[in-house]
Amino acid sequence: MFLKLGGSLITDKRTPQMARDEVIRRVGREIREALDQSAGLQLLLGHGSGSFGHPTAEKYSVQEGLAGSDDWWGYAETAAMAGRLNRLVTEMLLGQGIPALPLQPSASALCHDGRLVHLDVAPLQEALKRGLVPVVYGDVSFDTVRGSAVISTEEIFAYVAPCLQPSRVILAAHVDGVFTADPLRAAGTRLLPDISVSHFGDLESMLDASANTDVTGGMLGKVRAMCRLIQNQPELTARIISGERAGSIKKALLDPDIEQGTLIHI
Amino acid sequence: MFLKLGGSLITDKRTPQMARDEVIRRVGREIREALDQSAGLQLLLGHGSGSFGHPTAEKYSVQEGLAGSDDWWGYAETAAMAGRLNRLVTEMLLGQGIPALPLQPSASALCHDGRLVHLDVAPLQEALKRGLVPVVYGDVSFDTVRGSAVISTEEIFAYVAPCLQPSRVILAAHVDGVFTADPLRAAGTRLLPDISVSHFGDLESMLDASANTDVTGGMLGKVRAMCRLIQNQPELTARIISGERAGSIKKALLDPDIEQGTLIHI
Repeated sequence: MFLKLGGSLITDKRTPQMARDEVIRRVGREIREALDQSAGLQLLLGHGSGSFGHPTAEKYSVQEGLAGSDDWWGYAETAAMAGRLNRLVTEMLLGQGIPALPLQPSASALCHDGRLVHLDVAPLQEALKRGLVPVVYGDVSFDTVRGSAVISTEEIFAYVAPCLQPSRVILAAHVDGVFTADPLRAAGTRLLPDISVSHFGDLESMLDASANTDVTGGMLGKVRAMCRLIQNQPELTARIISGERAGSIKKALLDPDIEQGTLIHI
Repeated sequence: MFLKLGGSLITDKRTPQMARDEVIRRVGREIREALDQSAGLQLLLGHGSGSFGHPTAEKYSVQEGLAGSDDWWGYAETAAMAGRLNRLVTEMLLGQGIPALPLQPSASALCHDGRLVHLDVAPLQEALKRGLVPVVYGDVSFDTVRGSAVISTEEIFAYVAPCLQPSRVILAAHVDGVFTADPLRAAGTRLLPDISVSHFGDLESMLDASANTDVTGGMLGKVRAMCRLIQNQPELTARIISGERAGSIKKALLDPDIEQGTLIHI
C-alpha cells in the first residue's frame, strides 16, 4: 500500500518552513496502530514538501529548469528544504515506533523534460521485504532537457508502482477529497465521491484550476497523476481523503471499502 | 577532487550524537575559501559517521548483517543517525555559502557480502558539472548476502572514482596522518610521510591494529581502501592530513605538493 501525507496537511502553507508537529505525530500514531493491527502490511510512505520546498522551488524556477544557468544555488537550497522537512517527519515517525527509512529521491532520480524517467527502486523493494517503512518525498531532480525539475510524491508513486504492485494508493490531504471547486475558497462546491478514469476528461474542466497553487500542480495534478497510474494498472484504486479528521488515515489503511473522500478507479 | 572529513574530526567520539560544530564551521570556511580561490574546482565531499552512526551500527550488528532477522529496527536507527549528522553538516556548509547537495548513499547503494557493488553515480556527475558540491557519507546499505552492511565514505570514493576520475583524494582526520601505532595512545610512534602502494604489504603488520576502533576498520581500513583505489588508478594520489590544524584543509585543496600528513601513491 502507498500512503501520501500531503504538504498542506503536514505543514502550515501560510508560513515558510512551518511543520504541523501535532498533526504529524497524530498521523504517525494512526499509521503505527494500523501496522500493529495488520500483520504483513507493506507500506510505502510519501510526503509533500508544503511550505518548505514549494516557495523556494518557485523563487529559483527549479521546475521550469536551470539549464544554461551558472548559478545552481537554488537547486541546493530547494533540496535542503525538502531534506529538512523529511528529517522532521522521519524523526516523528521513528518517535512513534515506526521503522521509517527515508530514501532521498534526488539521490537517484533523473527527469526528461519534466517527466521522471529513472529512480532506483531496489532499496524500496528491499526495505518493504524487511518490514521497514520506506519514506519518499517531493524533491528536486536533474533533468536531461531542462537541467532541473521538481518531482512530486505522486510522480514517484506512479514510477515505482509497476515494480512494487501496490493494491491501493491513499492520498491524505488537507481537504476532504476532490471538489468541483476549491473548498477553502468557493461556496457551492461539491465533493466528488468517485472519479472514473474513463470520465476524467469530461470532468477536468469542471475542477477549479485556482486550486493549483503549488509547483507540482495542486489537486488537479494529483488526480491526473492517479488517473495515469490507474490506466496502466487497472486493478489499482486511489483514494483521496482528509488527514485532518482524527482516525481517518488509520481507517483508510485498514479498510479498502471505507466511504470517505474521493475514490479514483478505472 | 575528493575530500573526506573524518568522523573523529567532525564528532566527539566519546559522546554519542555530539557534533563538533565549531570544527565543522571552520572547515566549511576553509572549503569555501578554497572554492573561491580555485575557479572550476570540482569537489566531492564525504564525511564519516563518528559518534552518530558507529555505536548504533555496532549495537545492532548492521555490519555483520541482519539477514534472517525479522527485526530491522537497528537498520532504520543507524540510517537515521547517519542522516542526522549529514543534516547538521549540510546546514553548516550551506551556512558558509557552499552549494552543498547531500546525496544519500543508501538511497541507491547495494552491497554483495560487504562490498559495495552498486551506487547511482549520475546525480553526482550532474551536480559536479553544475558547480554544486555533492556530499556523501558513511551510511547503511542492503546486502545481497548478509542482508545489511555499513559503507564507509572511502568505499564510496573508491566506487565512484573510475567514473568521476578525481586527480586527488584528501582524507582530513583527527590525527596528523598514518602512524606506526595509534598516536593518541602509544609513545614512540612515528608518522609515515609517504606510503607506496607496492610496499603496503610489508607495512601492514607494523600499523597498530588497536587503532581500528570503528565498524569500518579505522585507519588501517582507510589506508587499505586508498591503496586499492590507487592500484586501479595509478595516476591518483591520496593524502591523509590533520583537519585539526586550522588552514591545513584549505592548503591541501589548493596545493597538491603540500608537505603534510601521509601521501599514498603508486
